[in-house]
Amino acid sequence: MATNKPTITLHVVASLDGFIARNDNSISWMDTPADVYEKGVTEADSDRSIKIDCFVLGSLTYEHALQLGWPYGDTPTVVLTSRKLSSTRKTVEFYSGDPKIFVESVLAPRFANVWLVGGAVVGQSFLALDLVDEIRLTIAPVLLGQGLRLFSDSAAEMRWRLTDLVGYKNCYVAMTYARATPERPGT
Amino acid sequence: MATNKPTITLHVVASLDGFIARNDNSISWMDTPADVYEKGVTEADSDRSIKIDCFVLGSLTYEHALQLGWPYGDTPTVVLTSRKLSSTRKTVEFYSGDPKIFVESVLAPRFANVWLVGGAVVGQSFLALDLVDEIRLTIAPVLLGQGLRLFSDSAAEMRWRLTDLVGYKNCYVAMTYARATPERPGT
Repeated sequence: MATNKPTITLHVVASLDGFIARNDNSISWMDTPADVYEKGVTEADSDRSIKIDCFVLGSLTYEHALQLGWPYGDTPTVVLTSRKLSSTRKTVEFYSGDPKIFVESVLAPRFANVWLVGGAVVGQSFLALDLVDEIRLTIAPVLLGQGLRLFSDSAAEMRWRLTDLVGYKNCYVAMTYARATPERPGT
Repeated sequence: MATNKPTITLHVVASLDGFIARNDNSISWMDTPADVYEKGVTEADSDRSIKIDCFVLGSLTYEHALQLGWPYGDTPTVVLTSRKLSSTRKTVEFYSGDPKIFVESVLAPRFANVWLVGGAVVGQSFLALDLVDEIRLTIAPVLLGQGLRLFSDSAAEMRWRLTDLVGYKNCYVAMTYARATPERPGT
């Protein structure tokens, strides 16, 4: 049983112009075969070292995942919602309530590496409460022109520190950031 | 004299959440000393190979540059504007009119590598007219929370191909994209 605070990674896939989906919620541009970035790595090569013990998502993202084909495999998944939703999978549980208490009481005792996979409301509430340890931003090689944004006018300014950078053969780029070192006045 | 169409690069520096400036137009977050990305390169190392023959900018970006300290050195600079602006530097000229004709008549005969450095109106009009050959997107390691966006609801969907990726010691990331290979049905 883990007793420390888990590492919470906010996972975002966005277009070049910062949209996470078209206005109709569709993300089919992710399926279009892309050009090749010769210097890139394959997903299989790079993602082998990523460790995810639990996915956390909002109810709309959950319903979307059920519709489009479940992308979370058998990894434990918690849906944050105050709505009554039917559980369709053994690995899925539901939680309603304060995110801070959720992290301390539900996540911390069981999981070391938690991925927050959306949507915008969940991501922004975790950021606002300072519960995000890492941001993993993946940029798709497409300008959408319009669509839905993960980050709308919201939180305060916050600095981050780049810890990893990967270019993939399919022209996607993944950046990983940790919280910036706090400024220490006088040192 | 060059007679081919010049390579036009749209240069964008954005925050992690896709803003190019605070709501008051300030960009002082770029000056804050950042954490260090150990695997990164220094700007001097990486940017040595970048060749820029001409900068193109809108009138607000021009006035901003005059205020903040001219960042374009002695490189020829064209300001696109229908306003009457005073020329303060020998290297600056003004142009008013259709962007396509501007590229063919002003840029093509004289410059091979043109950098489009903003603002939003200029960038979007060039994108909409299919005049952009390359996008260079630089991501700063900061969440702004709110601000001005280069890309607002605008153009049609457009695919791009990653051609270069650089992580800098100061935690900035620069991605370079070329136009995607056109789809050839039946091949």
